[in-house]
Amino acid sequence: MHRANAAPKIDGLYVIVGPDATRGRPVAEVAEAALRGGARVLQLRDKTGDRGDVLQTAVRLREMCRDHDALFFVNDDIALAYACDADGVHLGQSDLPVDVARRILAPDKQIGRSNNTDAEVEVSVSMGVDYVAVGAVFPTTTVGKGARQAIGLDGIRSARDTTDIPLVAIGGINESNVGDVIRSGADCVSVISAVTMADDPEDAARRLAAAIEDARS
Amino acid sequence: MHRANAAPKIDGLYVIVGPDATRGRPVAEVAEAALRGGARVLQLRDKTGDRGDVLQTAVRLREMCRDHDALFFVNDDIALAYACDADGVHLGQSDLPVDVARRILAPDKQIGRSNNTDAEVEVSVSMGVDYVAVGAVFPTTTVGKGARQAIGLDGIRSARDTTDIPLVAIGGINESNVGDVIRSGADCVSVISAVTMADDPEDAARRLAAAIEDARS
Repeated sequence: MHRANAAPKIDGLYVIVGPDATRGRPVAEVAEAALRGGARVLQLRDKTGDRGDVLQTAVRLREMCRDHDALFFVNDDIALAYACDADGVHLGQSDLPVDVARRILAPDKQIGRSNNTDAEVEVSVSMGVDYVAVGAVFPTTTVGKGARQAIGLDGIRSARDTTDIPLVAIGGINESNVGDVIRSGADCVSVISAVTMADDPEDAARRLAAAIEDARS
Repeated sequence: MHRANAAPKIDGLYVIVGPDATRGRPVAEVAEAALRGGARVLQLRDKTGDRGDVLQTAVRLREMCRDHDALFFVNDDIALAYACDADGVHLGQSDLPVDVARRILAPDKQIGRSNNTDAEVEVSVSMGVDYVAVGAVFPTTTVGKGARQAIGLDGIRSARDTTDIPLVAIGGINESNVGDVIRSGADCVSVISAVTMADDPEDAARRLAAAIEDARS
């Protein structure tokens, strides 16, 4: 029951930012650098901050994304995504159901969902998500608890065979392996630490975005 | 800009339940006991559980409340309140703004907000809340961080002079002081530990509800 959606399809480099993985730098500073470097999608992941404070950050990041013609997603928090007029929300397996997000958010908003297995991908697709995230592709410590075991490149190929909606690969992806990830069928590559923990997040994003382009040509 | 609202006015004993203050007993068991004892309002406060799991608890508590003709509120989480069709949501000073809850929730849903000072009460009333909570009335460890300092019975009287919308007193209230709290102008008395940490939550709720009635007669 995938809906027709006029919203832009997610694609390219997808950077997740949050206060727990910036090496102490302001979230907005790291986010801006990622966008300058070529991130096409930005997600704010802040599970613990006061919602009033996080809303201020979210509104700022959403404006930045519009300036860079990038998409802005909020992790988990549907009301926050609504409040800041994000382009969508990303839900984990243990978050509120997709239909709650669909009913609260405007029709053009996108909903993504994390998955670790093809069975989970199938359920997410049946719930009408706009994209499926799969991972962790490689072992990692910064992806959420939904990423139970590394699925490898075979996991990406298998997910690609399972659905034709946009496929986001996440978990342990960096400049050295991102080409393989794209060639295995991912439309979009999501990273946290490879950009947000880098000495130079803008340069890290630029290299990853270039490697994604290279793998497609 | 207080709205006309057909929803029942909150009144009487208001019990807040959550997994961190039940002495290990299931939240639903303690909630049911509080309702049997005469709680007129129940609030689920679970800031840390997986939202999917908390939704299941919320749906169960909402059904219990309907069976007991009591009102059911969700703490903080507007999307969860929406998802379980709660009677309303209770927001702290650092949560998302009241207008976000108003836009997401159905028109008959109620919004309450925590306050520590008369100035905060005035702002909350101007935001169009359905009730104001004030506290902590007495020193306590289980009320949230919004309750910065004990306001005493004078704080209740002062809040009562500030607004005529329903006034919920919270913080350190028990059987010995609840009469004074009501006589100071509170419409409703909110407790956590006095019921949820009691050896017999039903009996504790019954005694508090009776003391509230006594103070009114």
